[in-house]
Amino acid sequence: MQDIYNPENFTPYLYHAPENSGTGLPFIIRASRMGCGYEESFFCVQRNADYPYFTVHFLFDGCGFFHIAGKDYLLKKGDAFIITAGDAHTYSNYSGDPLGLVWIELAIPGQQELSGFFKMNHIHTLDAAHTEKPLAQLISIIKAQKAAPETDDFSLSKLYYAFLMDLLEAASLSPARSHPQLVTDALSYIEQHFTEDLRICRLSEHLHVSHTYLTRIFRRYVGTTPLKYISLKRIEYACSLLNTTSMSCERIGECIGMYDASHFNRFFTRQMGLAPSVYRSKNRETPT
Amino acid sequence: MQDIYNPENFTPYLYHAPENSGTGLPFIIRASRMGCGYEESFFCVQRNADYPYFTVHFLFDGCGFFHIAGKDYLLKKGDAFIITAGDAHTYSNYSGDPLGLVWIELAIPGQQELSGFFKMNHIHTLDAAHTEKPLAQLISIIKAQKAAPETDDFSLSKLYYAFLMDLLEAASLSPARSHPQLVTDALSYIEQHFTEDLRICRLSEHLHVSHTYLTRIFRRYVGTTPLKYISLKRIEYACSLLNTTSMSCERIGECIGMYDASHFNRFFTRQMGLAPSVYRSKNRETPT
Repeated sequence: MQDIYNPENFTPYLYHAPENSGTGLPFIIRASRMGCGYEESFFCVQRNADYPYFTVHFLFDGCGFFHIAGKDYLLKKGDAFIITAGDAHTYSNYSGDPLGLVWIELAIPGQQELSGFFKMNHIHTLDAAHTEKPLAQLISIIKAQKAAPETDDFSLSKLYYAFLMDLLEAASLSPARSHPQLVTDALSYIEQHFTEDLRICRLSEHLHVSHTYLTRIFRRYVGTTPLKYISLKRIEYACSLLNTTSMSCERIGECIGMYDASHFNRFFTRQMGLAPSVYRSKNRETPT
Repeated sequence: MQDIYNPENFTPYLYHAPENSGTGLPFIIRASRMGCGYEESFFCVQRNADYPYFTVHFLFDGCGFFHIAGKDYLLKKGDAFIITAGDAHTYSNYSGDPLGLVWIELAIPGQQELSGFFKMNHIHTLDAAHTEKPLAQLISIIKAQKAAPETDDFSLSKLYYAFLMDLLEAASLSPARSHPQLVTDALSYIEQHFTEDLRICRLSEHLHVSHTYLTRIFRRYVGTTPLKYISLKRIEYACSLLNTTSMSCERIGECIGMYDASHFNRFFTRQMGLAPSVYRSKNRETPT
C-alpha cells in the first residue's frame, strides 16, 4: 500500500484530449483531461452545476475539503473524491500544506447512469483503504501516456473502462460515510453557527455530551476534531469573501465570528501561512 | 491469421451466466451465454424481435446464411455476424457441411445505442479480413472461463468491454457491404422469383448482361454464384415449410418452383445429405 505513494509516481503532468478526438462511435470512453501534481497550499476550485464531466480525484498527499450535494467531506491521503456530472461542487485546501492530487475527467456515454449511481448511494468519497486498485490503474494510464502518448481511441477506452471497473469495485467496498446522530447534530450546529462566536464548550453543552467524548466520536467519523473542523469552515468562508468581495479584512473577520481584527489576522496567518491582505492580492494577481 | 482457426481453440463449450448475477451496479457488461462448437449440417435459428441481446457470432468453419433487417448475407469462414438487439433474424446452414461457430450474447447497459450504431450503419456482418482481433479476444475469454470460471463481475466486464472495443474497431474497418446496382437488381429479382421456375438465363436476360459477367460480379459481392445463391434461398424456404407446415413434399417442391417431385427430392438430398421426408421427421424428433 505504501509503495503506491512513491513520489516518482506523481511528477507533474497534464493531459488534454486532442481537439479532433471523437470518432462518432458509440460506447467509447474518453478523458477530456487528466493530471497529477501538487496544488498550492491555498487554492479553491468552485464549479457550477454545468460542469459536465464525471471526475475522480485521489489525494496522494496532504488533506483537503470537498463540498458536494449539500455535504462537506474532509479528505486524507489516499482518499478519493468523486464529482458527479452536473453537480455544483467546491474542493479546496486550507491546511497550509500543499495538496497532492492525481485526477481524471471522463466523458462517458451514458454517464448520467453512472453519476446517478454514485449520487443515489451518496458515495462522493472513497476511503483510502479501498482506493489502491483504481489509483494504481490511473497512475499506470498516466505513465503510459507520458511514455508514449496513445492516440488509438479503442485502446485508451479499454484503459479508462478498466479504471471505472476498479472504481466501482472500490465503491461497492466503501459504503457511503454514514454518521451517528451525535455527529450529524454536531455538523448541523456548526453549519448554523460557525459565522458567530462559536465555542466548543457551547457545542458540547448543546449536545449534552462531554467535550472529550464529542471530540473522540467526531474525529472518528469526520477525520478531525470539532475545533479544527470549525477552523476549516471559517478559513474557507473567509477566503471566499477575500476572493469575491471587496469587504475589509476587519469585516470579514466579523463574518466568521472573530470580532477582534488582530485575532482574525493571527488566526488566518497561522492557518494559511500568509496574512489575509496578502492572500487577497496574490489571488487577484493570478486569477483562475 | 491461420493459427486462430486451430481446432484446439474450438472444443465445444457452453457458458450460462449464473442465476444470481446482477449486482445493481451501473456500467457492468454481462454475457448471458457464450459458446463454441459445431452446429449440425442442417439447422436454422429463427427469432422474433423480442430477442433482447446484442449477439456476435464468428464462423470458424463452413459457410452460412444470415437474414436480418430485410437483407440476406452469405458468410464464409472468419466472417462475423451481428444480431442487433430487438431485431427479428434467422441464421442457418443449408450447405450440407457442419458450421463451426463461436459466439457471445451480451447484456449491455445502454445497448440500444450500440445496436443502433450497427443498424444505422447497416453493419450486420464483418469481413474475415478484420475479425482476427475480436475473435482472438473472445477465444481467450472462453479459454479463461473454461480453465477457471471467473465470477468477479468487474474482471469479466473488463474482458467483455475489451471485446466490444475490438469489435467496434473491426466495424470501423469493415464498412457495410454495398453492392453495385447490378447485384442489387439481381438480388431483388431472385427474391421475387425464386419460388417460381427461375432460370439463370432469364435472370441475365432481365439484367441485359451476359451470364459470365453476371456470375463474376455477383460472386465478388455476394460470395457465391447466382445459381448457388438461388439454391440456398430455395433450400431454406423448403426447410422452413418442412418444419412449420404439414404440406406434402410434392407441394413444397412446387413452392420453390420445382414442379417435378423427384427433381425436388434429388435437389434437396444432394444439398442436405438427406431426403426431405427424413429431414422433416428428424426435426420433429428434436424440437428446438
